[in-house]
Amino acid sequence: MDAVKVGLLGVGTVGGGTLNVLRRNSEEIFRRAGRAIAIERAVVRDRTKSRICPLEGIQLSDDPLSVVDDPDIQIVAEFIGGLEPARTLILRAIAHGKHIVTANKAVIALHGNEIFDAAHKEGVMVAFEAAVAGGIPVIKTVREAMAGNRVEWLAGIINGTSNFILSDMYHQDRTFDEALAQAQQLGYAEADPRFDIDGTDAAHKLTILSAIAFGIPLQFDKVYCEGIDRIHPDDAAYARQLGYRIKHLGIARHIGERIELRVHPALVPERKLLANVDGVMNAVLIKGDAAGPMVLYGAGAGAEPTASAVVADLVDVVRALTADPGNRVPHLGFQPDALSDRSIARIEEVETAYYLRISALDRPGVLADVTRILGDLEISIEAIRQQEPSGEQTHVPIVILTHSVREQAMNQAIARIQGLESIQSEVMRIRLETLE
Amino acid sequence: MDAVKVGLLGVGTVGGGTLNVLRRNSEEIFRRAGRAIAIERAVVRDRTKSRICPLEGIQLSDDPLSVVDDPDIQIVAEFIGGLEPARTLILRAIAHGKHIVTANKAVIALHGNEIFDAAHKEGVMVAFEAAVAGGIPVIKTVREAMAGNRVEWLAGIINGTSNFILSDMYHQDRTFDEALAQAQQLGYAEADPRFDIDGTDAAHKLTILSAIAFGIPLQFDKVYCEGIDRIHPDDAAYARQLGYRIKHLGIARHIGERIELRVHPALVPERKLLANVDGVMNAVLIKGDAAGPMVLYGAGAGAEPTASAVVADLVDVVRALTADPGNRVPHLGFQPDALSDRSIARIEEVETAYYLRISALDRPGVLADVTRILGDLEISIEAIRQQEPSGEQTHVPIVILTHSVREQAMNQAIARIQGLESIQSEVMRIRLETLE
Repeated sequence: MDAVKVGLLGVGTVGGGTLNVLRRNSEEIFRRAGRAIAIERAVVRDRTKSRICPLEGIQLSDDPLSVVDDPDIQIVAEFIGGLEPARTLILRAIAHGKHIVTANKAVIALHGNEIFDAAHKEGVMVAFEAAVAGGIPVIKTVREAMAGNRVEWLAGIINGTSNFILSDMYHQDRTFDEALAQAQQLGYAEADPRFDIDGTDAAHKLTILSAIAFGIPLQFDKVYCEGIDRIHPDDAAYARQLGYRIKHLGIARHIGERIELRVHPALVPERKLLANVDGVMNAVLIKGDAAGPMVLYGAGAGAEPTASAVVADLVDVVRALTADPGNRVPHLGFQPDALSDRSIARIEEVETAYYLRISALDRPGVLADVTRILGDLEISIEAIRQQEPSGEQTHVPIVILTHSVREQAMNQAIARIQGLESIQSEVMRIRLETLE
Repeated sequence: MDAVKVGLLGVGTVGGGTLNVLRRNSEEIFRRAGRAIAIERAVVRDRTKSRICPLEGIQLSDDPLSVVDDPDIQIVAEFIGGLEPARTLILRAIAHGKHIVTANKAVIALHGNEIFDAAHKEGVMVAFEAAVAGGIPVIKTVREAMAGNRVEWLAGIINGTSNFILSDMYHQDRTFDEALAQAQQLGYAEADPRFDIDGTDAAHKLTILSAIAFGIPLQFDKVYCEGIDRIHPDDAAYARQLGYRIKHLGIARHIGERIELRVHPALVPERKLLANVDGVMNAVLIKGDAAGPMVLYGAGAGAEPTASAVVADLVDVVRALTADPGNRVPHLGFQPDALSDRSIARIEEVETAYYLRISALDRPGVLADVTRILGDLEISIEAIRQQEPSGEQTHVPIVILTHSVREQAMNQAIARIQGLESIQSEVMRIRLETLE
């Protein structure tokens, strides 16, 4: 089957990231979508600008209509951002029967009602997962996975820049201005970070989330919005003393006959997962009446995480265009004839770090014997603690953390340790995973 | 349009929860799916047994074929569990052209290849979100939202019983046997908890997750599997001293040309989100090459969370059966003609708790003045701290946490406090959200 032809409006961070991901993972994506995705055209304002991606094989132009009016283009991916000309171009592409994938939260929050209305009439898809929380599939989750629930409320850390600044104020004891400067230096805040700081960006995203959570029209003008620029380091410190962290939240709540929509800093109990979301990460807590509370956590911005959401939307559209409804998503996510026969490792081949607890007779030389055995097998030790024997015990527990080692070597080591005269019970071993 | 007709095999915890959710949220579900979902038939072994749901209006039988062979039934929802007769009934329903929704991880892990093959040939859907991690949409996320990624690895707390026991051992200093007894008493472990304790249940789920993550066939027999029954309270204590928590994990990792599939207890650094998943909650960390690390957290079991996943699957099937592909999922999740006009509250009507920081002249009576103002407006105080003035300051910061109060009352209180002679700068206020 022919490749689906896509045109890009804009090849900056998100557009460039999308090109890179489509290229790097083309085989994986083809196995999933059952059809190739070809970027045929791209609109760039300045052809001489250096890009994060190569542009070979793509027809470039500085005229957006070269994409929007091309009858061969089936999907327009819009990465211009802002309200105009994005709105006009999207509506024009829809009028030509093209599907839209966009990362533009502003245009969806402010003109989504008009855009969706047009798309519904034309029978085309408008996909916007990348508009909220980068790589985290919060749109798909609320729209599809929560379909059986009445959503009671949701609360999210949905602006990475604000969250970076608040985390930095908390962990590094910086003032707002110092933390903002730090964010700009690291590329986490733009030269003009106004919309991040004053809450507008979070309000765009909350507008979208609240509409899909409650089935209400997009109502950006009804969102109460407060930024983080008034937070003083003293507030961070006092909040900490009281067992709280300050986070910038977007909150949508169904309460009685009304809906609350608000974006503002808030104290959050420090034991909560949301309180521990640091740096530029995003997280959204959704409370459904059936599912209960659910948290989605991940990278909320950046070229590749946002591209991950864009490509997921592209694959969704391609699947819908390609397969009969019953086979839209393959059962295992990959086309049945594209499953791989990659072999599964035996456990002896697996490498992990280890925790060992060894119960030894309290006599000299035991520790030396154990470390020698580990050393002979080239197992290096990360930490070792000889615990105090409790009460009248004649056995001393020795606790060891090792660096990463092949299971086979560890099996040998444990067999030898258990062969020592001073070791009279089984060595306890638990694998250690750093999750990194 | 006619309702979609569904037959249930089994009306226990999951089947009963599904009936309750479909009934309670029928309006919300209709607004989303654009079509009613009618439970026409249900198979129950014992009609006299008390149920968590009413069964009025449903044709009951103790013969599974009354559902599987009924030409009017379009979707069979299987909640029998276990391998047989579930496998045979599912295959027979597929042969009759019916779609399947199931919560049965064992039959998918062991017979999924055969079932999907049959379904693919018949062009019917088999949906199994409820088989893994209850209400958390981990199947949908990996299969659709991660479609642009090469999944590098995933690690999950995917058995609530094991996690409850380990949490209980850690927080309450209980032995394994004591914690298991506690889990059984609270209904978190079954009378025969063998498959939870020995890791088999987690291995079923990991088999499914690894297939959709890597595009490999389901290979339950290749999963290395270790349970939690050997963990001693000493291990929990030593791990804690070293900065770790012990969790029972399912891990699938793509490494070189091989794939690791393993289920076992593991030490996890205590700062990690996964280390802080307590009780019967589930969480899955997925690392995609584009999306980066992503965590999904929520209720992994129980009638309602599992029903949430079942109903999401039902809505997915109904949407695919009903709409043209381009309009399968409405843009805002709800049908365009079913958006609600529920009003958005003004911020003055919103109730939250508050943090206040008041900078006061260091003179007697200020605290009394402030608390009197709050009392007059019926704002009750949760905590109050007068901080030490730092250095040569003549101002003392007073920090107050209030209980929940209407914003309007708080505005009045702040205006009055700022009117006090001893208060010479603006009162800092930050809302406080318990996220509960």
